[in-house]
Amino acid sequence: MSTTATAGTRPDDVRRHNRAALLRRLHVDGPATRAKLASTLGLNRSTIKALVDGLAEDGVVEERVPVQRSGAGRPSLLVLPQPQAAVVLAVDIRVERVAMALVGIGGAILARGSWNAREGRREPAEVFTKIVDTAGPLIDELAVRPVAVGVSVPGVVRHSDGFVHEAPNLHWSDVPLGGWLSRALEVNVHMGNDAELGALAEHLRGAARGADDIVYIGADVGVGGGVISNGVSMRGAGGHHIGEVGHMVVRPGGLPCYCGSYGCWETEVGERALCRALDLDENSPVGAIVAELRSARTLSAPERLGEFAEWLAIGLSNVVNLLCPKLVVLGDLFTALPPALVADLERTVRERSLVSRALGGTRVVTSALGPDAKLLGAAELAFETVLSAW
Amino acid sequence: MSTTATAGTRPDDVRRHNRAALLRRLHVDGPATRAKLASTLGLNRSTIKALVDGLAEDGVVEERVPVQRSGAGRPSLLVLPQPQAAVVLAVDIRVERVAMALVGIGGAILARGSWNAREGRREPAEVFTKIVDTAGPLIDELAVRPVAVGVSVPGVVRHSDGFVHEAPNLHWSDVPLGGWLSRALEVNVHMGNDAELGALAEHLRGAARGADDIVYIGADVGVGGGVISNGVSMRGAGGHHIGEVGHMVVRPGGLPCYCGSYGCWETEVGERALCRALDLDENSPVGAIVAELRSARTLSAPERLGEFAEWLAIGLSNVVNLLCPKLVVLGDLFTALPPALVADLERTVRERSLVSRALGGTRVVTSALGPDAKLLGAAELAFETVLSAW
Repeated sequence: MSTTATAGTRPDDVRRHNRAALLRRLHVDGPATRAKLASTLGLNRSTIKALVDGLAEDGVVEERVPVQRSGAGRPSLLVLPQPQAAVVLAVDIRVERVAMALVGIGGAILARGSWNAREGRREPAEVFTKIVDTAGPLIDELAVRPVAVGVSVPGVVRHSDGFVHEAPNLHWSDVPLGGWLSRALEVNVHMGNDAELGALAEHLRGAARGADDIVYIGADVGVGGGVISNGVSMRGAGGHHIGEVGHMVVRPGGLPCYCGSYGCWETEVGERALCRALDLDENSPVGAIVAELRSARTLSAPERLGEFAEWLAIGLSNVVNLLCPKLVVLGDLFTALPPALVADLERTVRERSLVSRALGGTRVVTSALGPDAKLLGAAELAFETVLSAW
Repeated sequence: MSTTATAGTRPDDVRRHNRAALLRRLHVDGPATRAKLASTLGLNRSTIKALVDGLAEDGVVEERVPVQRSGAGRPSLLVLPQPQAAVVLAVDIRVERVAMALVGIGGAILARGSWNAREGRREPAEVFTKIVDTAGPLIDELAVRPVAVGVSVPGVVRHSDGFVHEAPNLHWSDVPLGGWLSRALEVNVHMGNDAELGALAEHLRGAARGADDIVYIGADVGVGGGVISNGVSMRGAGGHHIGEVGHMVVRPGGLPCYCGSYGCWETEVGERALCRALDLDENSPVGAIVAELRSARTLSAPERLGEFAEWLAIGLSNVVNLLCPKLVVLGDLFTALPPALVADLERTVRERSLVSRALGGTRVVTSALGPDAKLLGAAELAFETVLSAW
């Protein structure tokens, strides 16, 4: 019997464990032949057949003869997860916008909704009501009830019950949003810090696939960090996320921050600082900032970002020294940073950080999932428990 | 059968697992009655008896009738670990001094040696030779050969083979000290970053006993951090330690640091900065600095540390935001900081760090092990593999 099968000791436990591993493999890596599943999971073909047959009976997977045959002999059947067999509701709460989606097994977005949260429409009670009001039509459209809900919040969140301790840029504190949502939607709600979920999504489906020690840095109004260590979300005391990098003081005596401190990294490299660096109005919409970052003026002369780039390098060197990642993924607005500037950043971090030097350099890349990273991360947080308990 | 016993599936595995758990319990928490061992390990009395009898036969534990009887009936025998039954050699390499010790089961220091490493006597080859030369007499004195060696180095160390990538304050880079020592001493050598090992020791035997999410900050010439998360040393890419806090830039454009950067935290709060704050010569010996910190002048007016205290607070708030500890232990020179200043620091961190606020405050305390923290941590690193493979 394989190592995969030894976690449980009773036959029922073993079967449940193997079924969860199979489902997770299909969810994260997509369709695969029975032969491939057998080899990657270290299980024999008859075990795989029994598991797949069971899942097919439940409508969770479908089998097909593959189009391309891999050699002589009878082709191994291709096993495809059925997205609608298990759907989660994902919610990404941001300062400027709330996005929602129904996401199926395999990570496909099956339905979307969003609204502008500017103009004072981000009081906790209003956001809560709007989430519930938006969920209804989405569920009706797809005619599938979500089996769990995942929510991304730009703040410090208690995992156990989705209690938002503090979300400075939303001006929220002590908001029991997880409890409200689970009662209203009558389904399990899992909540996490936005950058932590960005890290999870990039690790599973984005720029950090295959990398096990990463830091994700997301920037819109706020700047946040999330850490995956040895393939797992790194957590600190009380299960809270590790890497509240936006509120690291890099410029003592600098600008005041919503968090109550001064000279935080996010006051130097967040959305407003980026606007200043680009000579844009500080309240410019995200689209205008991205357009300017991708304009010929910035692409051909990334040095016009001047001091902004220097603060980015200082903060990122600190992050690498403290959190020891092999790869840094820059997300949200940073996704649009000029490639030449990102390459410079990678070089500077390697020069300045002794941890990066010890690692033979830390790669710095931009997000592959862009504005969807946190939404997809929220979906993955919800899927974690769903798939393991299938 | 208890949960403790289910990690292995064959009777041999179970016995080995339980024996390691029992030995670890005695090593970390000291002597205990058979009854107490049975209840804390979740094993029945006959299993405990068999295990203890086996260990007693090997001379690893001794049994005695306890002096204080806990009630009526036959007293439960007290099981005592025998320090000399397994001895490790611990080495703490610092900029100013190298300390060595033979440490027995239970954590007792059985023999010590040390030498001054100032005055150009800290080239890698010289330190290596001196360690080997000092080990001989120590081993002869005790007449027990160490079963493993643990070494603490103030730098970035590869765990797998004890390769020192960089130790800026020693001016070391790319030193394969682990390989040299294991060949010369003919025993397994385990090496770690000094602050990581300080964290381990304080967690097991010092100020952080019972706390599972901690950061240890050690300061002599350099400043370093080590992190225990959920009771385990937190590691990043390549198994390197997390928390190279001394080289976090807190004062951009500040003093140059040995690491090649400017305005690192250690240039603002390390030994030299502390000397400046105390109006001492920058090359004052450690004893003089500690005496001045504990003098009536500093104790009655901790505000004389002025700017130094502010840099300490800024850096510590960053550390708490990024690493999310419930408890911070200040070690080495910081052990002597005035209690009023430490209390102020705890208050300031709570005010400024939103992570600390979310945790209901992060406690800040001084080390219980002082200058022995890293030496004892090196011993514990060596014991980890010894005890689990007993």
